[in-house]
Amino acid sequence: MSIKQNWIEFIKTLQNDICIALEELDGEKFLNDEWKREEGGGGISRIISNGNIFEKGGVNTSKVFGRLPETMQQAFNVSESKFFAAGISLVLHPKNPYAPTVHANWRYFELYDAGGTRIDSWFGGGSDLTPYYLFEEDAKHFHSSLKKAIDHYGEELYALFKKNCDEYFVNNHRNNEARGIGGVFYDYQRPKDEEDAERLFAFQQANANCFLNAYLPIVIRRKDVPFGEKQKHWQEIRRGRYVEFNLIHDRGTLFGLKTNGRTESILMSLPPTVRFEYNYQPEPGSEEDKLLQVCLHPIDWIN
Amino acid sequence: MSIKQNWIEFIKTLQNDICIALEELDGEKFLNDEWKREEGGGGISRIISNGNIFEKGGVNTSKVFGRLPETMQQAFNVSESKFFAAGISLVLHPKNPYAPTVHANWRYFELYDAGGTRIDSWFGGGSDLTPYYLFEEDAKHFHSSLKKAIDHYGEELYALFKKNCDEYFVNNHRNNEARGIGGVFYDYQRPKDEEDAERLFAFQQANANCFLNAYLPIVIRRKDVPFGEKQKHWQEIRRGRYVEFNLIHDRGTLFGLKTNGRTESILMSLPPTVRFEYNYQPEPGSEEDKLLQVCLHPIDWIN
Repeated sequence: MSIKQNWIEFIKTLQNDICIALEELDGEKFLNDEWKREEGGGGISRIISNGNIFEKGGVNTSKVFGRLPETMQQAFNVSESKFFAAGISLVLHPKNPYAPTVHANWRYFELYDAGGTRIDSWFGGGSDLTPYYLFEEDAKHFHSSLKKAIDHYGEELYALFKKNCDEYFVNNHRNNEARGIGGVFYDYQRPKDEEDAERLFAFQQANANCFLNAYLPIVIRRKDVPFGEKQKHWQEIRRGRYVEFNLIHDRGTLFGLKTNGRTESILMSLPPTVRFEYNYQPEPGSEEDKLLQVCLHPIDWIN
Repeated sequence: MSIKQNWIEFIKTLQNDICIALEELDGEKFLNDEWKREEGGGGISRIISNGNIFEKGGVNTSKVFGRLPETMQQAFNVSESKFFAAGISLVLHPKNPYAPTVHANWRYFELYDAGGTRIDSWFGGGSDLTPYYLFEEDAKHFHSSLKKAIDHYGEELYALFKKNCDEYFVNNHRNNEARGIGGVFYDYQRPKDEEDAERLFAFQQANANCFLNAYLPIVIRRKDVPFGEKQKHWQEIRRGRYVEFNLIHDRGTLFGLKTNGRTESILMSLPPTVRFEYNYQPEPGSEEDKLLQVCLHPIDWIN
């Protein structure tokens, strides 16, 4: 079976497994929205709203193919081509401000010439954590879970992809403030040959399969910590930064919106309630400021 | 005195007049933030937060000049140049969902060659209304106030600039849904000669001077209408669309953020509290749906 078919099967199973685990923890069910793409393909969006733990979230898969849109031709520096892309994207926004938001995405892309011959293919993906309050224990757990999963494929990879992540999820209109404490992020991982494709596929699976272990223990630890209006207010301020990053800078979001993607599935990433205040600054030295400082100055959480 | 100097004086006086009128109505004062731009110029941001009527708002002026950034050289199709730009921008977000949000901006731009000779200049601006509930009376009042102010300068202008506005403030990622019920929007109004410059200056003043009469009577009518959670919820959903437009599509916002503008002054336009829900649809035929329908199908409010 081709990498393509295997990948489609993999993300379908992963979507189910992740939703089952989250439903078990939350008690609330995900709704199921299937959609078709006129130009080829479609997707399944699974959405949770007003859960007991998760105020809003989505675990979406999509498989799209057809003629490569012109905007993408420019981006990939090719002429008239066909493409195939399949991936899984998830974002979870817990209600409790002490529990972090998480985002992950794993995707596979194939590019064909006008005659249908495959001319390129690559994997991309990553997961990153956006806490509202800093618990070093949580940051270390998240990062070391990712590192452990990746190390087998090259001991230099975690550091490299961690740096990518720190550089990517950044509001450069806000003094290069990161949206959270990062994780890993990689793109254009191109198989050199059949064997390498198997290796990259396994690498991708290792990343995806470690997600639940990287994230759930953190949520379980924080979901019932008592909080008040002050913490909710700060969470909503930081969620504002999340919105700014996703709508101003995130390539995936903008690409999706500008190439006629399914808006509701793309924007499931936006937080449920958000607050924008003029020039809001946390008190220096406060718990809120401690979080802000690690967003301004990314930390090496493992060494 | 040059157009440039007159314009700077005009927006300074207008900023004061508008703030005084709004403070008188609201009871709360605007704070005053002055800022300098490293490359030349600066601005005065006047911000209201948690007022009695206005939950959040700003009335900002700026005057910036210097070397034209490279991104702008491309946009204006010129090589190494200098520029001068001065304008006033305002956004007001009332607390009461029955009172509409309003946005207005009036600006003047000059472009010089590397030697400092003026090679181009233009006026731009407009005002538009974003209600959460539709009151035809309000829509008619707002549009006819603008028309009355503009008609003197050409009877075809209102219709033309109203159409510009309907086409500009649109979330094209949401089935071309307008963010509100429009107003007028114009750009690149270039003086042909000295006399024409006077005429355009007067046209610009007429637009700006009609603002308070176009907007305040509407707020006064709606500010004390009783509302409940349902109306606040809908207001916050629609404010989400406002955020989407400003961060994804608005040229002024993106231009400011990407050319190292003052982030807090640019993003004062974002609403105070916002809600994003997956695939939220108002009930067909409801008051909420009535508003949505005029956003999807712009109305000619005057004839």
